[in-house]
Amino acid sequence: MKEIEGTIATPKGFFADGLHCGLKKEKVDLGWIVSEVPASAAAVFTTNQVQAAPILVTKEKMQAGTLQGVIVNAGNANACTGEQGLKDAQEMAELAAAQLHTSPEAFAVASTGIIGKSLPMEKITAGIQQLNRQGDAHRFQRAILTTDLTEKSSVIQSTIADKTVTVAGCAKGSGMIHPNMATMLAFVTTDAAIAPALLQALLKELTDVTFNQITVDGDTSTNDMVLVLANGLAKNPTIEAGTPAYHEFKGMLKAVLTALAKAVAKDGEGASKLIEAHTSGAVTDEAARMISKTIVGSPLVKTALFGKDPNWGRILCAVGYSGQPIDPATVSIALADIPVFVQGTPVAFDETIMQEQLAENEVKVVVELKEGAGVGTAWGCDLTYDYVKINALYHT
Amino acid sequence: MKEIEGTIATPKGFFADGLHCGLKKEKVDLGWIVSEVPASAAAVFTTNQVQAAPILVTKEKMQAGTLQGVIVNAGNANACTGEQGLKDAQEMAELAAAQLHTSPEAFAVASTGIIGKSLPMEKITAGIQQLNRQGDAHRFQRAILTTDLTEKSSVIQSTIADKTVTVAGCAKGSGMIHPNMATMLAFVTTDAAIAPALLQALLKELTDVTFNQITVDGDTSTNDMVLVLANGLAKNPTIEAGTPAYHEFKGMLKAVLTALAKAVAKDGEGASKLIEAHTSGAVTDEAARMISKTIVGSPLVKTALFGKDPNWGRILCAVGYSGQPIDPATVSIALADIPVFVQGTPVAFDETIMQEQLAENEVKVVVELKEGAGVGTAWGCDLTYDYVKINALYHT
Repeated sequence: MKEIEGTIATPKGFFADGLHCGLKKEKVDLGWIVSEVPASAAAVFTTNQVQAAPILVTKEKMQAGTLQGVIVNAGNANACTGEQGLKDAQEMAELAAAQLHTSPEAFAVASTGIIGKSLPMEKITAGIQQLNRQGDAHRFQRAILTTDLTEKSSVIQSTIADKTVTVAGCAKGSGMIHPNMATMLAFVTTDAAIAPALLQALLKELTDVTFNQITVDGDTSTNDMVLVLANGLAKNPTIEAGTPAYHEFKGMLKAVLTALAKAVAKDGEGASKLIEAHTSGAVTDEAARMISKTIVGSPLVKTALFGKDPNWGRILCAVGYSGQPIDPATVSIALADIPVFVQGTPVAFDETIMQEQLAENEVKVVVELKEGAGVGTAWGCDLTYDYVKINALYHT
Repeated sequence: MKEIEGTIATPKGFFADGLHCGLKKEKVDLGWIVSEVPASAAAVFTTNQVQAAPILVTKEKMQAGTLQGVIVNAGNANACTGEQGLKDAQEMAELAAAQLHTSPEAFAVASTGIIGKSLPMEKITAGIQQLNRQGDAHRFQRAILTTDLTEKSSVIQSTIADKTVTVAGCAKGSGMIHPNMATMLAFVTTDAAIAPALLQALLKELTDVTFNQITVDGDTSTNDMVLVLANGLAKNPTIEAGTPAYHEFKGMLKAVLTALAKAVAKDGEGASKLIEAHTSGAVTDEAARMISKTIVGSPLVKTALFGKDPNWGRILCAVGYSGQPIDPATVSIALADIPVFVQGTPVAFDETIMQEQLAENEVKVVVELKEGAGVGTAWGCDLTYDYVKINALYHT
């Protein structure tokens, strides 16, 4: 299993394209990913009770278990747009399908951007009619971005039953990033052969330890979706649960989802650094994940690390209000690999070395408990002036 | 029942003092509140599992049901300080008691400030020995502040069974303000006669709709405490549950706790305005309170209101992820008394008037649901550049 250069269109039989249709001022804002043949599909969606039209429309389409592609726009979330919104989302799928002479049922729909405005369907219609097979997958990867600063993608290749199998993913994140699904858009393509039900079970399991473990600001969006398409063109024997092929594929999918999740956290709105929290010795893995997520979600930890302040008191405080069982007397904390609090007692450290470590663009917090064998990791980013600026100036 | 000018020492038989003992650079940082006679005592404490030494020591002392005073310092939280911290907190109580020739068991202890450093006990000892009966209660009210900008107090007077009864309170807040207890320090004095158990029950009930309904940043501190002392010197017949006297006293205590809670929210770190969210029509009062609190806790709502942006989409989104049952199609939202979303549909409003309203230093969000009869209010503040500045520069 190795990371390779590539895009969402690298797995066999996929193409992708993106273009500017006028939802954003200048940047690309519309795109698609398409498989040459119907693909096993799996998806997880936002847990927000207010769900945007494309979420509702795509949930319907998932019932068949297969899809051939997804049409995506940025700049307008098509959320809180009532009946018109549902019609518009459905029409996006129909237009994409018409362009490729496939069934509209085969197209998922995703949107991101401003809430509460109807989609300008003339622009979208004209745009979709210009998408094509000889497209540029990088343009797709950029077309889904909003306040993101960087294109986020990951491509992993391996051999399964003597066949070369590739898993590729791309994502958009930035603000409104918090728990329980996905809280952003991510798309994964693979040429592996795997049935929809097993793909869905894998996606759900891996989302809990990847996308559901990142937080930027604790807000859960109305539009979040992670969608996986597996078209089988690698010609491997269909992957069955519990086999070596299953474990290899699971490792590949986990690597892609982890890379995308970390990239989303690192590119959180206004962020200057990635914060990774790792907890061990918790009562369960779930407890460890929750403790890690509470740490990376604490505004006081986030601002301290922005200020390069080794404020372990705020980390310990977050551990204490995580809701998980802990004994303060047995907690140990290391910051940037430097122990700062050991078995309930502060320890001295070299301030100069610590300052240098905290100036890096990735900072690791390690918490060790003595409650059990649970381990879990979460990712977040620091809280900066720019987060406030971006969100105070983003006017409706 | 009326609001009057006064301080924490206004109820009969209380005095308070504050001075600078050297924990902060220049400002007052040490003080006490004392009742001339033993007082019924009630308290609620932080739910954080990491609890500072003064919290642990005061919990012990609460078991007797009566106290005669509280000794408080700012500048050092005496948290994560091990055995030494417990000894130091106990010694603060003993020094205060010795100064007044009372039992050390009669003194509660509270601390706020930096975590993980032992108290400089020489400074504290010298300071306590200079506190006296002819003190200045305003100096106490200032001595408990940290990054707070304003002294926070509220005094309510009424007549109960022909006796003049006074309830007074003061508080410190600012950062680390979130749920489930109190997430700050507040002290309430009253000359009403009421038994400890009934006072405790009332405090718990009223804390749930006041202090537990404010949020500044979602962090729960290790040191939070609300303490009420009722010394009976108003000479009213001891208040019994369910009587007219009980309802009058409850109203007074609620008025003081509400005023202090709002003052703490309004003076949140870096805040430029108070945000009040009121939800009605939820399945229960608890659900309504949680929805209101989710709105005022959303970083995206907080930054939008800092930017005077009438971003009802972010409000609706917060309603959706509050975890409480709602139907997006029946939600209505008014911002600054202007309807922006009615029964699931956006409505047009006058942008100019809205801008003027959002420039005020108090902004109200009203959410109406159709799920039931539950109502609930929460208070918070906007998220500004100054919040980031204060917390990134506050170095350990």
